[in-house]
Amino acid sequence: MPKQVDHQERRETIARALWRVVERRGATRLSLREVAQEAGISLGQLQHYFPSRADLLAFAMDFAGEQAGLRVGRGLAALGERPHPRDVLRVTLVEMLPLHADARVTSRMSAAYVLEALHDEDVRARARDGLLRGREAVERVVRQAVADGLIAPDRDPAVETDLLLALTGFTTLLELRVIGPAEVLTAVDRHLDGLFARF
Amino acid sequence: MPKQVDHQERRETIARALWRVVERRGATRLSLREVAQEAGISLGQLQHYFPSRADLLAFAMDFAGEQAGLRVGRGLAALGERPHPRDVLRVTLVEMLPLHADARVTSRMSAAYVLEALHDEDVRARARDGLLRGREAVERVVRQAVADGLIAPDRDPAVETDLLLALTGFTTLLELRVIGPAEVLTAVDRHLDGLFARF
Repeated sequence: MPKQVDHQERRETIARALWRVVERRGATRLSLREVAQEAGISLGQLQHYFPSRADLLAFAMDFAGEQAGLRVGRGLAALGERPHPRDVLRVTLVEMLPLHADARVTSRMSAAYVLEALHDEDVRARARDGLLRGREAVERVVRQAVADGLIAPDRDPAVETDLLLALTGFTTLLELRVIGPAEVLTAVDRHLDGLFARF
Repeated sequence: MPKQVDHQERRETIARALWRVVERRGATRLSLREVAQEAGISLGQLQHYFPSRADLLAFAMDFAGEQAGLRVGRGLAALGERPHPRDVLRVTLVEMLPLHADARVTSRMSAAYVLEALHDEDVRARARDGLLRGREAVERVVRQAVADGLIAPDRDPAVETDLLLALTGFTTLLELRVIGPAEVLTAVDRHLDGLFARF
């Protein structure tokens, strides 16, 4: 089915063009015309694939999320069989922060998407679903680590999960160069040290 | 000097109108015409006070920051003389999160401002300065608490400060209703328990 493959490829090309525009110009004044130009197609062709701005944003966000998932998957695979849950959480958390160019694109897309979500119920529902799935995955790791005696039994897995997710707040500090990548990694390690402290 | 007072009042009226528009419609497609309408003045009058969009955003952000500072000040005053540093950090942190309507406005203004900052060096410098001042204030409290033996001496005040600021990542979780205010407060308290744990 070569036609379907082309269709998906074209959509991904447009999504990557959107990412570059977001990276360069920001999402606050995003123009579909500029995205079309960046993708090397006409506005009409772009609208053939994505009838509305919301359609394009949703696809670009899903695609960014998929790519981030693949990066986490590669990071986890590099840990070998039966990785320590501390390393699993570190890889996951670090990949959510704008510490390198690919993660920065995903992070900026997310920030734009969250702002859009505040005023669009459909976008909010999609963004919420994605975050809830991510939250569940992290909580499973924490819960198993408690069951395996690697995290103190008096720690509440749900609360510890919320604290881990909250550390995505490093995004703003990094983007505004309030602190640098080395300081963020030190702080993430300090937090994980506390979570996996001997008891 | 009644004229100067009027001038400042008018600017604050416009800033509050901007906040309401941001609250209602989001910052991604902010129109100065809509802000003028919300403030009950003409676009020309608005431009008399704020010649550019950047001027208006900067003033509205500074004013939101001031108001947040006043809220923190009132919270600290309510703690009485010589408040415990744990309570000082809790009041400060909680006021930075969108847990009530006033704080939500400040929080959404900040999110919009950070996105704008990524692509405007002046905005970035202003936003960065504000965050650095906030960071210093938090670090002073942490450093004093270590000196006073309330936080373990092996904790690095800079790292602990970064972790406290990172907890502003709860903003997204709250805005998308992934978790609620009660869960956020529980997690903040858990983090502070860990920081002020007996050693």
